[in-house]
Amino acid sequence: MTAEIWDVIIVGAGLSGLSAAHLLKKRNAKLRILILEGKDRVGGRTVSTEIPAANGVDQWDFGGQWVGSTQTHVMELIKELGLEVFPQFSTGKKVHHMGGPASKVRTYRTSIPALSPVVLMDLTQLLWKINRLCATVCVQDPSKTPNAGELDSMTLHTYIEQHAWTAELKEELGLCSRSVFGMEPSQMSFLFFLMYAAAAGGVLQLLETTTGSAQEFKIKGGTQQLSERLADRVGWKNVRLGSAVTAIWQDAEWAGVTTATDTFLCRAVIVTCPPHLAAKIHYQPVLPSQREFLTQNMPVGHMIKFIITYQKAFWKEKDFSGEIVAGTTTGCPFCVTFDATSPKGNAALVGFIAGQQASYWGSKETSERREAVFSSLVKYLGPEAATFIHYEEKDWAKEDYAGGCPVNVMAPGLLTYYHPSLRKPCGRIHWAGTETATQWCGYMSGAVQAGQRAALEVLAEVSYISLTKEELDELQHCQTAESPAKKAPSSGLLYLSASKSVAIATLTITAVLLLAHRQNTFLKFKACLMNFFSASKQNMFRL
Amino acid sequence: MTAEIWDVIIVGAGLSGLSAAHLLKKRNAKLRILILEGKDRVGGRTVSTEIPAANGVDQWDFGGQWVGSTQTHVMELIKELGLEVFPQFSTGKKVHHMGGPASKVRTYRTSIPALSPVVLMDLTQLLWKINRLCATVCVQDPSKTPNAGELDSMTLHTYIEQHAWTAELKEELGLCSRSVFGMEPSQMSFLFFLMYAAAAGGVLQLLETTTGSAQEFKIKGGTQQLSERLADRVGWKNVRLGSAVTAIWQDAEWAGVTTATDTFLCRAVIVTCPPHLAAKIHYQPVLPSQREFLTQNMPVGHMIKFIITYQKAFWKEKDFSGEIVAGTTTGCPFCVTFDATSPKGNAALVGFIAGQQASYWGSKETSERREAVFSSLVKYLGPEAATFIHYEEKDWAKEDYAGGCPVNVMAPGLLTYYHPSLRKPCGRIHWAGTETATQWCGYMSGAVQAGQRAALEVLAEVSYISLTKEELDELQHCQTAESPAKKAPSSGLLYLSASKSVAIATLTITAVLLLAHRQNTFLKFKACLMNFFSASKQNMFRL
Repeated sequence: MTAEIWDVIIVGAGLSGLSAAHLLKKRNAKLRILILEGKDRVGGRTVSTEIPAANGVDQWDFGGQWVGSTQTHVMELIKELGLEVFPQFSTGKKVHHMGGPASKVRTYRTSIPALSPVVLMDLTQLLWKINRLCATVCVQDPSKTPNAGELDSMTLHTYIEQHAWTAELKEELGLCSRSVFGMEPSQMSFLFFLMYAAAAGGVLQLLETTTGSAQEFKIKGGTQQLSERLADRVGWKNVRLGSAVTAIWQDAEWAGVTTATDTFLCRAVIVTCPPHLAAKIHYQPVLPSQREFLTQNMPVGHMIKFIITYQKAFWKEKDFSGEIVAGTTTGCPFCVTFDATSPKGNAALVGFIAGQQASYWGSKETSERREAVFSSLVKYLGPEAATFIHYEEKDWAKEDYAGGCPVNVMAPGLLTYYHPSLRKPCGRIHWAGTETATQWCGYMSGAVQAGQRAALEVLAEVSYISLTKEELDELQHCQTAESPAKKAPSSGLLYLSASKSVAIATLTITAVLLLAHRQNTFLKFKACLMNFFSASKQNMFRL
Repeated sequence: MTAEIWDVIIVGAGLSGLSAAHLLKKRNAKLRILILEGKDRVGGRTVSTEIPAANGVDQWDFGGQWVGSTQTHVMELIKELGLEVFPQFSTGKKVHHMGGPASKVRTYRTSIPALSPVVLMDLTQLLWKINRLCATVCVQDPSKTPNAGELDSMTLHTYIEQHAWTAELKEELGLCSRSVFGMEPSQMSFLFFLMYAAAAGGVLQLLETTTGSAQEFKIKGGTQQLSERLADRVGWKNVRLGSAVTAIWQDAEWAGVTTATDTFLCRAVIVTCPPHLAAKIHYQPVLPSQREFLTQNMPVGHMIKFIITYQKAFWKEKDFSGEIVAGTTTGCPFCVTFDATSPKGNAALVGFIAGQQASYWGSKETSERREAVFSSLVKYLGPEAATFIHYEEKDWAKEDYAGGCPVNVMAPGLLTYYHPSLRKPCGRIHWAGTETATQWCGYMSGAVQAGQRAALEVLAEVSYISLTKEELDELQHCQTAESPAKKAPSSGLLYLSASKSVAIATLTITAVLLLAHRQNTFLKFKACLMNFFSASKQNMFRL
């Protein structure tokens, strides 16, 4: 068996790997680049599938689907590849159901859920605290965050238990954790949560459909096109599908990459698959133990995504936006749905069964799961929900060479002890994938950023001349992991100065007392809160 | 390539795998059993090595070394294999250094460390709370423990922060965590910690050298003999060293096990390697996602163990026991040392660099690490410590097919969400290894218990007739994971009834006030505490 020789081999033909290949090619067209992919398609955690719809068939995303205007890396790529975005539809009543099966189903129209005044105030004080902490996080090197050790020694659950006042808010935050990470709040470090939010520009940016948020736009024709068009540019002859990498060895001269049937030699390797899959590759010599400990502490989330097509968007006719938020205690299998009507006008809803609900419902028969989904949709949107054209779902935990979605989180202690190994190359091996990004990590934009960063690292080794002085300086800067952490208040467990805590508490308690007797004050208070949130977001990086 | 055919293939020739093979052979001598081992030796996380000593050379354990009289599975095996134990030497002054490099080095003679009265009382109240919780844990199925979800949603660090009053005790408990798990308290679920302690009979059993505790006895000639003698009985022709398993597939008729050079067919497989290594094997069909999520949440600890031989046990002559306990803040690289004088009388000390200290010191040159070890030994035991015969160390994170030691812990959330996958067979694949034990899990005894349990599972499939009715019932019982949880007080976050908390707090505060002025009361109080601990241990399972 003679080994093929390449300059660079990329493991994984997702958005990160293909972005890396694309940049390498742009900088040095002579570089021989090979991309090895286990799946039989490109796109990684993005996949666009045709399903029956009102007007024949149409395309929907069963993986990553949203982008936002602050996600500069993916937005630039979309433009470069000649693709178009369209906004997430969010006009009309949103449904909100929390607090047990017998609790009242509420509707609301703003970006703030239909919470009771007390819970709304609880949310306000908690978001204020978390956003204050977020602003102190050093994403590049979270161990430099003030009080990092303490923030990383507790789970997100512990922080919520300590700082949320109401059971309703705690349920709400569990839902947020499931929706964003496919994980329960007990399963991740609080510092990781802060870092993730900081990399997105704030907590609300993770949750909303508003300008600059994570759910702002969708891509016409689907997100998998990004990877397909990148593969067009890189050349499909350089992409080998169905070629899972099982081993990587390296010596003073070469790196060797092995699949079930072939061996390839190259000068540099970029591994882009998520950490739990990167951990399954056999490395020779073995990776530094700190890198092994890193991947042992990065479990992946669990999401089942479903798309349901309808003859018409009956919810719009009934003045619903299609957005439903439902807590685990309600018996509803999904945590959130949105309108998913295609740019061609084919009516559809998209929903997510996530975290432990995905584990529970994923173990049931499809028919039982589907029945539970429709039963809840009928409850929230009316009997029309039962008359659909097609129901299609994807359980990412069962996808080969994925094993979970949307992202790998970090267990407590990881950021304190093993974080330097996240992006640090191991000899000829460089690490990409959205988990290694510093802007919008966990999102498609992060995947692009990480791929491009790894490509620059490789260029510095195999084609030094292709880099500008600024890029070389930047690489140097990244590898020494220097990034200015915002100055935080200097004392107190969670950097919330005592006087401000008291002020916030007094403010919210006073408001509760007022509101208990004057229901009409509520709407004014809500408007005021929305201004507060909006201002907070704008101010976040000015703090 | 023709595949060899066997009845049962065992992955890993450690204590668990060999115990399984031994039991299978005893029950049905006709069974064709093959054990595949990646390393070039048997013993897994036990290894006994000859090093220069006062009288020529002698044998010391560089992996698991201690057993205790309550560890029934390993004690029976020791007897069966004709081996002998001898007690851990612990007579004389013990050294205790915590609270920063400038703090006073104290000595003590009892099993309770030389803590200040205030810290001692803090320890008392905390141990009382933890032992109460331990007594409520259902080891077989920890999710049945009262308040399991909450206990599993926090790290051990969070519990300590919430319930320990003094910085000194917090430092002390960090040291305990490192010594026992090779991990920091931020890296594991508090419920996991409770389960681990409950499986050992209590927290103090993990820490002490007293009767019934984890560090009670050592094995004459070393612990690796257990595996070697088991291999003698199973037959060395059935053990293939240097044969790391890379893939396991299964269909309706066979399981196939693949190494770099061979493929074997069999009816059942027992995988005994630690979870992070089991996760690196490629399974076809892929394992259920719950099993994959389980191994993603079980990182392994980090320990560097050293043995130093001396011309004579100078510490005994100076009335030291050889036991030193030193906190991270003192600058001392190791957390604990013990006398390791061999049964042949060759003087030696054994020490552990563990957890994050192992990461830190493991990245240094051997000479620097050794120098730091001797510098601390000289400080604590006197200048004689510098004149040694031989210094030998083993960093388990750098050992091939180990990657860490002594045990894999469980991240928060695992016990709530994925625990049923820990022992549940996946088709023809059965799971052993000390992490799957229910008595002394994490110890050699747990490895034996787990191996024997997996062997019984396999017999139930391939040689039904070899089992007694009781064993079949027991297997059934284990698989439905029924085990009576002790009834706990019914309310309150951590099952400590308010009145008792207040009583304990009042008691300890009163004692502090008394002691602050009457130093001679201290010794009486200490004696009283020791009686309390002793009584607690005896009462633990009567609660």
